[in-house]
Amino acid sequence: MSNGPQYSTIIRSLEPSVPFVSPFTIERDMGRPFRLRLGANESSFGISPKAFKAMNEALETLYWYCDPEAYDLRQALAKRHGVTVKEILIGSGIDDLLGLTVRTFMDPGDVAVTSMGTYPTFAYHVKGYGGKIHFVPYTEDFRNDLGALVDAAKRTNAKLLYLANPDNPSGTHYSKPQVESFLNNVPDCCLVILDEAYIEFAPRDVGTPIQTHDRRVIRMRTFSKVYGLAGARIGYAITNSETVDAFDKVRLHYGVNSVALAGALASLNDPTFERTVIQEVQRGRHEYETLGNKLGLPVLPSYTNFVCFNLQDMAVAKRVALELKKRGVFVRQANGQPFDRFIRVTVGSPTERTIFSEILSEVATLLEVIHG
Amino acid sequence: MSNGPQYSTIIRSLEPSVPFVSPFTIERDMGRPFRLRLGANESSFGISPKAFKAMNEALETLYWYCDPEAYDLRQALAKRHGVTVKEILIGSGIDDLLGLTVRTFMDPGDVAVTSMGTYPTFAYHVKGYGGKIHFVPYTEDFRNDLGALVDAAKRTNAKLLYLANPDNPSGTHYSKPQVESFLNNVPDCCLVILDEAYIEFAPRDVGTPIQTHDRRVIRMRTFSKVYGLAGARIGYAITNSETVDAFDKVRLHYGVNSVALAGALASLNDPTFERTVIQEVQRGRHEYETLGNKLGLPVLPSYTNFVCFNLQDMAVAKRVALELKKRGVFVRQANGQPFDRFIRVTVGSPTERTIFSEILSEVATLLEVIHG
Repeated sequence: MSNGPQYSTIIRSLEPSVPFVSPFTIERDMGRPFRLRLGANESSFGISPKAFKAMNEALETLYWYCDPEAYDLRQALAKRHGVTVKEILIGSGIDDLLGLTVRTFMDPGDVAVTSMGTYPTFAYHVKGYGGKIHFVPYTEDFRNDLGALVDAAKRTNAKLLYLANPDNPSGTHYSKPQVESFLNNVPDCCLVILDEAYIEFAPRDVGTPIQTHDRRVIRMRTFSKVYGLAGARIGYAITNSETVDAFDKVRLHYGVNSVALAGALASLNDPTFERTVIQEVQRGRHEYETLGNKLGLPVLPSYTNFVCFNLQDMAVAKRVALELKKRGVFVRQANGQPFDRFIRVTVGSPTERTIFSEILSEVATLLEVIHG
Repeated sequence: MSNGPQYSTIIRSLEPSVPFVSPFTIERDMGRPFRLRLGANESSFGISPKAFKAMNEALETLYWYCDPEAYDLRQALAKRHGVTVKEILIGSGIDDLLGLTVRTFMDPGDVAVTSMGTYPTFAYHVKGYGGKIHFVPYTEDFRNDLGALVDAAKRTNAKLLYLANPDNPSGTHYSKPQVESFLNNVPDCCLVILDEAYIEFAPRDVGTPIQTHDRRVIRMRTFSKVYGLAGARIGYAITNSETVDAFDKVRLHYGVNSVALAGALASLNDPTFERTVIQEVQRGRHEYETLGNKLGLPVLPSYTNFVCFNLQDMAVAKRVALELKKRGVFVRQANGQPFDRFIRVTVGSPTERTIFSEILSEVATLLEVIHG
């Protein structure tokens, strides 16, 4: 007797999981909205007025299908990065591009390597396509362990190695020479995914020159962070044109929506807005650092739009996150060793930072009283 | 010697392909835009003013990530269809849902069945996940051959069977009792994908009652057609909640953008707009029928927002499509037997229909002269 259609081998082997729980889901569980939404590294500085205008105009012809080649945007990005249109791939955010990369390079049973506790969606996709994920611990100073990542890639014959630079959740980064040396050491048959979602917030010495002749590297960027287009779902990859051709064989050709395409293109043409956001974020990071020092909760140096406050202990961090939640503040307690002693807080707008400072101070005092 | 990272087994086995060429791509090749865009079954009647307003408002908080559970929209759809929220899945259009269904139910080497010449994106995804596609010819009266589809599913031990009802590109349809009888005959272990993208344009007797206890059926609907949200990329599936749980294990959780979610929800709350579009499309189909009769190019009866004009011969249809293109009119010559003798034309607005009527008449006269 059959019991109806059967799922694929991979689906049957998987436990239910989501990459991470959304603030909307938490709000539905709480029965009320958050007062401060500082847990998803969204931009508190909105979107460019030029992008707003372009997206508004895009609504006028939304009854048309989108351009599956995203030609205008790819042309603008190619110009910006000094590469060709054929070396740019557009996706519905880096999440989409990570899934597509796993699908394009891994067979079921193949291994991918990354840091234990880094951005979880890469591992989600590796498992979702039947791959095995090999985790490498962070160093004691909360950085990706480049040497150990390379060793693990060699040892496991890894197809993919994922590195976020600057990193999430730590906010730490590696400089150009450090990344170059790392890339030179990675085995030739392993593709390195450089997730550069936060690179606009980092000093110019972060990241390496873009060399698309090197088939071993794919760089991923997003419009979700500095450009504030998180809800529009759009990101891009820069890589060898042969790899883009491989993606084209299987990708969802009509996946990226017209509003996002218009907003992204217009965002690239508003350098003033971009500069302002970067400056505001720098200012906010500095304020968080001062706040952390004042409260005895030192922050990790960050090159992103978020900051990790060190609570020294997992249980305390959990308690602080909970007390903040009670007060309507959404932050994340990062997952696993060594980050579960931290709370990760997005750099808010000046008003949001003032409110956050008051509430965190209140919670810190409360905990001092408890721990006495 | 290694030559860098290797693609997956499936990617290496695939020839380059796209589901179909976009009008934007054709325009870039031509070096000028189309005057009439009637080849992609987009809606010439725009979007609901309520949807426009909702999407405009959604831009205000676009710096937030979207709700990965699409809760509000799923709730509204559940209410509309008399099912539960857990029986609704949102995707970036039916294309996305087709890919996810293939991924969730097929192992590489498994077989899927569909009609030769129907909507091509299903076969694109089957091949893209390493499956085999088995095509069944249409009947002589240009309908999906339900008996032959069932026989093929049995013979090939198919995991999936795809049926568009109303059909694309023919515009033909099957009634409730016909589909029910078909579903009863499909083997128990085969999932039937009922693509109902055009169902709002069909009489109420099309389609079957929605019975989500039946794990053998997944119905797919879209906001791209009657609601005019093609560029926003949003559609949904109605199926058993266990199947939705299976999709949740691997789907792109942050794939559907906030603008689309807002526009879709608002569209559901504008029945007046929906009714108007349906009436306009009926009127347009009737006009096309009259035009076809006048020109000796009889149309297929259609229950969609497009009409097939019969040119009786593949070479003539090709020539007509080309002459229309020269005059700035984008239509499709459908693919393969028996449809390659047709041109498929979207129902345009009244103005578009007037222009189309003039140009098609001119082309028909020209061909008469040529063929003497």
